[in-house]
Amino acid sequence: MKKISKVLIANRGEIALRIIRACKELDITSVAIFSEVDVEGVWVRKADECYPIMKDPINAYLDFNIIISIAKKANCDAIHPGYGFLSENAQFAKACEENGIIFVGPKPEHIALFGDKMASKVAMKKVGVPVLEGTNEPIDDVEKAENISKDIGFPVIIKAAFGGGGRGMRIVKNQKDFKQMFESATNEAIKYFGKGEVFIEKFVENPRHIEVQIIADKYGNVLHLGERDCSIQRRHQKVIEVAPSPRLNNNVRKKLYDIATNAMFELSYENVGTVEFLLDDKDNIYFIEMNTRVQVEHPVTEITSGVDIIQRMIEIAEGDKLQMSQEEIKFRGYAIEFRINAENPQKNFMPSVGTITKYLTPGGPGVRLDTSIYSGYKVPANYDSMIGKLIVWSLDWQGAVKKAKRALDEFYIEGFPTNIPLHREIVRDGDFKAGNFNTSYLDEKLETFTLQTQEHIKQEEQKVAKIISFIAKIKEKNIKVKH
Amino acid sequence: MKKISKVLIANRGEIALRIIRACKELDITSVAIFSEVDVEGVWVRKADECYPIMKDPINAYLDFNIIISIAKKANCDAIHPGYGFLSENAQFAKACEENGIIFVGPKPEHIALFGDKMASKVAMKKVGVPVLEGTNEPIDDVEKAENISKDIGFPVIIKAAFGGGGRGMRIVKNQKDFKQMFESATNEAIKYFGKGEVFIEKFVENPRHIEVQIIADKYGNVLHLGERDCSIQRRHQKVIEVAPSPRLNNNVRKKLYDIATNAMFELSYENVGTVEFLLDDKDNIYFIEMNTRVQVEHPVTEITSGVDIIQRMIEIAEGDKLQMSQEEIKFRGYAIEFRINAENPQKNFMPSVGTITKYLTPGGPGVRLDTSIYSGYKVPANYDSMIGKLIVWSLDWQGAVKKAKRALDEFYIEGFPTNIPLHREIVRDGDFKAGNFNTSYLDEKLETFTLQTQEHIKQEEQKVAKIISFIAKIKEKNIKVKH
Repeated sequence: MKKISKVLIANRGEIALRIIRACKELDITSVAIFSEVDVEGVWVRKADECYPIMKDPINAYLDFNIIISIAKKANCDAIHPGYGFLSENAQFAKACEENGIIFVGPKPEHIALFGDKMASKVAMKKVGVPVLEGTNEPIDDVEKAENISKDIGFPVIIKAAFGGGGRGMRIVKNQKDFKQMFESATNEAIKYFGKGEVFIEKFVENPRHIEVQIIADKYGNVLHLGERDCSIQRRHQKVIEVAPSPRLNNNVRKKLYDIATNAMFELSYENVGTVEFLLDDKDNIYFIEMNTRVQVEHPVTEITSGVDIIQRMIEIAEGDKLQMSQEEIKFRGYAIEFRINAENPQKNFMPSVGTITKYLTPGGPGVRLDTSIYSGYKVPANYDSMIGKLIVWSLDWQGAVKKAKRALDEFYIEGFPTNIPLHREIVRDGDFKAGNFNTSYLDEKLETFTLQTQEHIKQEEQKVAKIISFIAKIKEKNIKVKH
Repeated sequence: MKKISKVLIANRGEIALRIIRACKELDITSVAIFSEVDVEGVWVRKADECYPIMKDPINAYLDFNIIISIAKKANCDAIHPGYGFLSENAQFAKACEENGIIFVGPKPEHIALFGDKMASKVAMKKVGVPVLEGTNEPIDDVEKAENISKDIGFPVIIKAAFGGGGRGMRIVKNQKDFKQMFESATNEAIKYFGKGEVFIEKFVENPRHIEVQIIADKYGNVLHLGERDCSIQRRHQKVIEVAPSPRLNNNVRKKLYDIATNAMFELSYENVGTVEFLLDDKDNIYFIEMNTRVQVEHPVTEITSGVDIIQRMIEIAEGDKLQMSQEEIKFRGYAIEFRINAENPQKNFMPSVGTITKYLTPGGPGVRLDTSIYSGYKVPANYDSMIGKLIVWSLDWQGAVKKAKRALDEFYIEGFPTNIPLHREIVRDGDFKAGNFNTSYLDEKLETFTLQTQEHIKQEEQKVAKIISFIAKIKEKNIKVKH
């Protein structure tokens, strides 16, 4: 008998739809929740049941008492939190447990451990993971912090101890700037996370961001599903993710897998998770953090490994043993994910809102689209600007880049600006095509790309106008075609 | 230096778009043609250049003098014919050659040979392929035909010698019906193909239709890309195609591969092609025909083999050697293709036309969509009713069936009836789920499916109406939600 027969999805947008899809494929009834502004969300219609939460748009997805009460009312056995919102909230996971609802994710103690970046580094160091030198506990004393930084040696990075997403984060290259940077970091941390404590660590210049996808059942079986290279970032936010990393030495790759799987085994980790590392130009490995949830970029791993991560999350949560061994997972080809954001790269990435008036999606071989938008959909202004993910695959890296170019060129969203034009520049860039990028890549090239984009958008508009006028003439039979 | 830098696509609809996609990924300029009624076709806008052909809608894609003159005017090096229309016209392939244009496909002599079903059987028999017993040449004499049939033994099948697609085809179970069936077959053949000759062969009852995808370069390298099971047919037209065949014995599978690749090697076949077989319930193998073009169902093979068939067609045509060996082709999982037709299964599959007023496409993991339709598109009445193909993939057969169910349930086309509701019944059927089907499958179950469909469409409409009214109430704030 199945333990899980009905799942409430405590999320919205593309990841809510993604989880509904997994439920349907597992013959599990799915229950959506939605805020007042999300009433036209496609996941609301695609779930088997849906419940409105009439709070303000953000808190609708954060108020876990309401969410658990809906889950109980609807007789759900489990809740899948997706990413963001309640996904890394140990209290929520615990509350689910206390209410007899399976939380689809790791145990609350692991969420709590890895949610505390400092404690997670200590724990990982104990099980043999190389971590960045730095403070061992949250700190709010500027003098103490400056002394530690002097010991580690500049450059150092200041990071909010109870947050993420680049908020409350500062890089300090020289000691003279330390005080001012420390204050602005702690102020931002207070603003966003309610706590001003930070930690300080060695700053690795121009590293690659490489992360290992882990999948582990309740019986000590820990497998990896390969690595992702998420070096292409803007303001510490991932923009493009790649699997596998196109320029990673195979010995280093194997070492990363061993470090990650061993650590997760030693710490008795359950369900899926991602161990994130920085690699410097000498392939030194530094653990930075562990994410105890499914990640936005999981599709690139699903495509290359053939493993459905969301389905396996649900099965592991209900107590299933992993049905595969490490050797049985056969990796194939290269996948690239492009986050499609409703934002204007021409106006400093200002979020854009509006209704989709015309919509042509890429398709055909090697193209996966994860999105909950559709022709006629109005993007609400209240949430993260990511409105979908385009994922491409090919047997080799060059093929994947060409596929990406083709698919991005096909993608047409009329109604508001998106970052698709920026992606189009990236896939035409020589360094990207050569797999040559680190976390500084986008910062260094953004200005050039933005200028090129302006020119290319103009050219594209002219081309479209020309075709439309040509087609109009044919419709009005105003041209003579000789054969 | 590339020999092919610009390709004219002598086709329309999804396959035109498919070829444009391949060209873009190979950095080849693409040129579309279109008839007057196809002016809103998405492939017209997605190609780098487009040329209208102001003839009647069908002949626009058949008049090869005009098409070749456009190719020359536009400086195209090559023409890709897709499937249907001119794709198996040896004269057209020859005319391309004579005009210095590369025809993306096999040599004209192979097209001619395999276009003649009788000659193709003789040729295949010579190189060791087991063929169905039958006439050795086209026949139009009813007395002679009846005597041959007596020798072979009933049941026999009468097939138009110069046609396909089930036209001019009759199964004769008893000798007493022979004369009448023969006459109606020849009359139909004259009507559709201009020639009344037929051939007669042993009729295999309830066979499976299994075909092997061949890929061969100009240097004698012949590889297979696995088999497809196309047993699910309606009136000899494929409806659903599967790769690999879910219930095929591995020894038989290997035998089919060997037969097909050896024959194509012996006959010096070039480019891609499909060797079609019938298998009876004792796994006896009977060659039926060879298709000298890319097939509608090629995506299932692309997904399981990882090989891009259209790209390789173009490279082979320009003289490239195959860059892979048989051993390097690693097959993975199961793929199923559903032909999406604008037709009404409730009204004897009458073709339907109309404008798409709302359009929600399936997506996410393991889903490929090949279509040129979009929200707002008006389907013209002049062409084949197939408007797209939904292809799903999973690591195992059960997973693929569940994925299919999920993806078909998600697929929403408002504006006219399609065969999606029929597909939804098939993927819920126990025999289909068990991989238990042959060419009689759909004939036997169609009535039941049609009745179920009526019921399910009604239920679905009620469900949608309920959700819409619920959502409307929320929008008008007419409901009280207590938390």
